Amino acid sequence: MTELTVGLLLFPTFEVLDMAGPIEVLNVLSIYMGKSLQLHVIAATLDPVSPGPIEPGTSSSFAGQQLYMPTNTLDNAPALDLLIVPGGPGSGNKEALRPFLDFIQNVCKGYKGHPPAGYLFSVCSGSLLLAWAGVLDGKRATTNKSFWDFITSNGPKTHWVAKARWVTSGNVWTTSGVTAGIDGMLALVSSIWSEDTAEKVGATIEHNRAKASDDDPWATHYGCQDVLPVTG
Amino acid sequence: MTELTVGLLLFPTFEVLDMAGPIEVLNVLSIYMGKSLQLHVIAATLDPVSPGPIEPGTSSSFAGQQLYMPTNTLDNAPALDLLIVPGGPGSGNKEALRPFLDFIQNVCKGYKGHPPAGYLFSVCSGSLLLAWAGVLDGKRATTNKSFWDFITSNGPKTHWVAKARWVTSGNVWTTSGVTAGIDGMLALVSSIWSEDTAEKVGATIEHNRAKASDDDPWATHYGCQDVLPVTG
Repeated sequence: MTELTVGLLLFPTFEVLDMAGPIEVLNVLSIYMGKSLQLHVIAATLDPVSPGPIEPGTSSSFAGQQLYMPTNTLDNAPALDLLIVPGGPGSGNKEALRPFLDFIQNVCKGYKGHPPAGYLFSVCSGSLLLAWAGVLDGKRATTNKSFWDFITSNGPKTHWVAKARWVTSGNVWTTSGVTAGIDGMLALVSSIWSEDTAEKVGATIEHNRAKASDDDPWATHYGCQDVLPVTG
Repeated sequence: MTELTVGLLLFPTFEVLDMAGPIEVLNVLSIYMGKSLQLHVIAATLDPVSPGPIEPGTSSSFAGQQLYMPTNTLDNAPALDLLIVPGGPGSGNKEALRPFLDFIQNVCKGYKGHPPAGYLFSVCSGSLLLAWAGVLDGKRATTNKSFWDFITSNGPKTHWVAKARWVTSGNVWTTSGVTAGIDGMLALVSSIWSEDTAEKVGATIEHNRAKASDDDPWATHYGCQDVLPVTG
């Protein structure tokens, strides 16, 4: 693949490292390794998007950060090879997220003359948006382990894999909590380019990678079990 | 400590994950664990700061991101308990960084009636800024391993420790490449609050921590050796 058009979907109160882990991996690919990538930061408006607070006054001012200037709104995103969906406190607000869920659904089936996105990639509770958008129906997936019961109960047509740093199911990649986004994106880089490329990127960011998708201690830590799809 | 005033120093073409690793740790402390923190994003102007490209036209457009709206300029930063200095491609441009180096020097000795910062914390090649500012003179430090020779040669009065995920020397914390900032900030949290607090934050972000400061495979990977200060 010579050029990759990447979309980063940003909703209010996203998790900073859910966004930054995969973006760092792709930045290193672009800057240090000369791969040609195009980033589109896609949000509801072109105003800066903040990672918090979700309810003004309930968090300390530390969360009151203004991050990332969007380049595109949900209405004018281009055709994408890869859409990245982070999680975070704002991922639980289904009604507020409705336009984002419609966007995910559209991107996956193709719309406005665009072909379907090549890959869909979620980090942490970003999988909740994918589940609500219906794009995990009939698929295998994982998510962060500290909100396992809540998130898996919102995706009743999905086989949720507990002991997984990431899960691939067709072109949908879901990763576990926060830092799993780094490991998952390195695995995607290995899949698209080569394992050697992924190793070099990992070494550049001095990341002690989980190299196997089931190299995940957190399912045991949080006592999570696989959840099978509801049938009948 | 009941409240921590944190400064994040952002220069053009910083490394995204150098910034986001420590900020994520502190966000989780703030949002999920109720610690009272204040963040000030300090830059040359109040315009958004971009992680790249350092030389327009030399990088792909993937690096053309606008990140973080600064809250303060170098001239009006408040007294800080902790100053975070990321690295990245822009950290090598000594002349352009002069105002930032002066700022680091001032923050460390106290200025404008402010007491000296409680802690100084660098990630990756952020240690190069600390070295140029003179605040690593007579101290032990580490930095990223892929630019080891260049960075250590710019800090001739410093004992550079190769096999280190992070190094503490007085109130100065330096960490290794990129993802080491996550481990180092968790260690600082352990030091300020408690190991239990650091463990809970690490589990929330599902991070497979390096718990010991010398738990670093990258010195061997890159063939780095300790560099002693030049005497005489």
